[in-house]
Amino acid sequence: MNKNIGIIGLGNVGEAVVESLNRYSALISRRSSLELKIKKVCDISRGKKVIADKFRLPFTCDPYEIIDDPQIDIIVELIGGIEPARTIILKALDRRKNVVTANKALLATSGKHIFSVAQKRKRRVGFEASVCGAIPLIKSTSEGLVGCEVSKIYGILNGTTNYILYKMRQENIDFSCALKEVQERGLAEKKPDLDIKGIDTLHKLCILTYLYYGLWPDLKAIHTEGISKISLLDIQYAQELEYRIKLLAIAKKGKSSLELRVHPTLVSVEHPLSHVSLNYNAVYYHTQPAGELLFFGEGAGGKPTSASIISDIVSIASGNKGFVRNAEKVRLKDFKNVETRFYIRCLALDSPGVLAEVSKILASYDISIASVNQKERKEGKFVPIVMLSHKVKEDNMEKALKKIDSLKVIKRPSQIIRIEDL
Amino acid sequence: MNKNIGIIGLGNVGEAVVESLNRYSALISRRSSLELKIKKVCDISRGKKVIADKFRLPFTCDPYEIIDDPQIDIIVELIGGIEPARTIILKALDRRKNVVTANKALLATSGKHIFSVAQKRKRRVGFEASVCGAIPLIKSTSEGLVGCEVSKIYGILNGTTNYILYKMRQENIDFSCALKEVQERGLAEKKPDLDIKGIDTLHKLCILTYLYYGLWPDLKAIHTEGISKISLLDIQYAQELEYRIKLLAIAKKGKSSLELRVHPTLVSVEHPLSHVSLNYNAVYYHTQPAGELLFFGEGAGGKPTSASIISDIVSIASGNKGFVRNAEKVRLKDFKNVETRFYIRCLALDSPGVLAEVSKILASYDISIASVNQKERKEGKFVPIVMLSHKVKEDNMEKALKKIDSLKVIKRPSQIIRIEDL
Repeated sequence: MNKNIGIIGLGNVGEAVVESLNRYSALISRRSSLELKIKKVCDISRGKKVIADKFRLPFTCDPYEIIDDPQIDIIVELIGGIEPARTIILKALDRRKNVVTANKALLATSGKHIFSVAQKRKRRVGFEASVCGAIPLIKSTSEGLVGCEVSKIYGILNGTTNYILYKMRQENIDFSCALKEVQERGLAEKKPDLDIKGIDTLHKLCILTYLYYGLWPDLKAIHTEGISKISLLDIQYAQELEYRIKLLAIAKKGKSSLELRVHPTLVSVEHPLSHVSLNYNAVYYHTQPAGELLFFGEGAGGKPTSASIISDIVSIASGNKGFVRNAEKVRLKDFKNVETRFYIRCLALDSPGVLAEVSKILASYDISIASVNQKERKEGKFVPIVMLSHKVKEDNMEKALKKIDSLKVIKRPSQIIRIEDL
Repeated sequence: MNKNIGIIGLGNVGEAVVESLNRYSALISRRSSLELKIKKVCDISRGKKVIADKFRLPFTCDPYEIIDDPQIDIIVELIGGIEPARTIILKALDRRKNVVTANKALLATSGKHIFSVAQKRKRRVGFEASVCGAIPLIKSTSEGLVGCEVSKIYGILNGTTNYILYKMRQENIDFSCALKEVQERGLAEKKPDLDIKGIDTLHKLCILTYLYYGLWPDLKAIHTEGISKISLLDIQYAQELEYRIKLLAIAKKGKSSLELRVHPTLVSVEHPLSHVSLNYNAVYYHTQPAGELLFFGEGAGGKPTSASIISDIVSIASGNKGFVRNAEKVRLKDFKNVETRFYIRCLALDSPGVLAEVSKILASYDISIASVNQKERKEGKFVPIVMLSHKVKEDNMEKALKKIDSLKVIKRPSQIIRIEDL
């Protein structure tokens, strides 16, 4: 069976898709009995014509030449960002095209509308490449776990931040130094906010929320913390305590509530998720009846991501049905009521009675301490006190921290990092 | 859409499939728009009727009542073993039924015939549950990696042996002691040979070979070693050298050759595969263009495995196409020519010149040593010498080992364990 494809956007991923479809076409047609043909490629920049020329493909700067082509069955949108990607996808669906996209920012913000239009038009939107690049996560879990309830998700969904945290630990360098190194290697943008503030992770968490629970949460309602406040000191203490710090996207489903959050997290070195190093991505699941599962692989990069784009193309071209995702009846849990364990690190004046003062405040907010570590190591006159708490409500922790930081003997700000016992 | 299912075999997995289909039927129909109905269940033992009664299902002791039922669309074979499972599956295909099976021993030995019959009859055989229980490995990799070449596979495919090795390391106990504990927990059979001799792992490696390279290798042509010769001493030395010992199924594809083997392997503690503990399974892949991937989850047990059975049922009932697996033109590499690094442990009489004698033999077979560790720790008068080699041909290693073991100063047998730098 022949299927014609149009590709819009020839950045890193777009170029890699053209290359991979070319290089692996025999393999793909042997396995799927499909002849996939790139009918035309498009980029707003005329300079990208060299890519088209290399593979002898028709090129255009006008996306509508692709969308309006009646011979094209599947549109691959690889522009990124909100506009014009959003309009292009919606117009393509209007013209009864199936769509494949890697655009996480767009899906996180406009997914609800895009998927409702797709449903009306009876067309599919493939989005395997939008979360965890090369990992066939969406296919594995939506189809492979079709009979399963997903109760907990812990995801390392952003390679850049994982690499920065890895570098800090491996090379004993601080955040800004690690960021610079990672930028020099081309693994972080010059404006890295989307990554380091956790926004990219948040976008992907939204897509997973749709995937497993059928709903698109309000981005603003999800507590999102990045990694810029993680100090080398914290990395080292975590290590001593046999934990590693990972930026996690977390989802926990209760009977009628859903807890969603993004923040740096202490993960035990005994857990496989703590060993996801470099810029790899991984997601750990608790499910019924399949039990615990982990998927690990490259989260970004043209070549790896092209594998997921091709998987979507083949699935759609083969006429496989997409899965329906009806919204489950759950409401988002208020972050104030979320309960976790905490790593608490204060810098205290080395004077008698400080620990007593801090402990008193914690106790007054029902915060019970599992272990305390007061170090002789000094920063000027300040001594780090590191505590691990039992489970405590966010609200209480926040109030206690404010009080602790108002003490004269404490050097502000004290650090808190949540702990997950996976 | 309604689909009728017949289940043959009500052991652990069969019972769990009945339970899961019952418990998650609303979820499944919401996601897939399918109404899956168990039309009848079968077990040779009449005692299993209680399971049928519990779920108000018709029960029979005669599998042909299910195979011959024209209203049944999908037959789930969960008897295990070769016969009568083989005949039942073939008859079911003859009667134009689709089949779902978890039977790895059968597929490894009769897969070629079964799949050729299925192809002729234009029916599908779902086998997600035959490798790595709950992990949606087959769907993820055959469909998710449809455009990828798989160049290397490293699999922990047997939970029982992984648990034994884990116990030995965690509790500092020897093999027989760990086996007993694992048997007491019900995680190893009373006759554990299939697991501990690596046969079960071999069966699953054969299925993966079919999946990625389209061919069913001759079981006898694949070097297969179990874990019973692994001593606590080796586990401890591996630990000191920052390795862990795992029973791995390994496949490496060259341009026109395929290397297949099953044996205990030293894996660096830096690699995520070394942290697959308890009775978990995991597979690590090298692919192009998707890069490196790891899948991790429960490898056995009724409930987890039922998730994979259901995934197969839904995929077949939805009319999704299976993927074609044409044999690639590769020949199996002769094990003698395989090259790996080795961990070599000898027990030597504590007399001068022993290390020189051993080294001389190794050198005479072109075996270059990367590190040597002669321990003061004594076993009687014998001192362990532990060496890690550079890459060396199997043939040379085998010959060198024989010579070393013929030395009077060496307590036979010396131990060799292969190392993989993943």
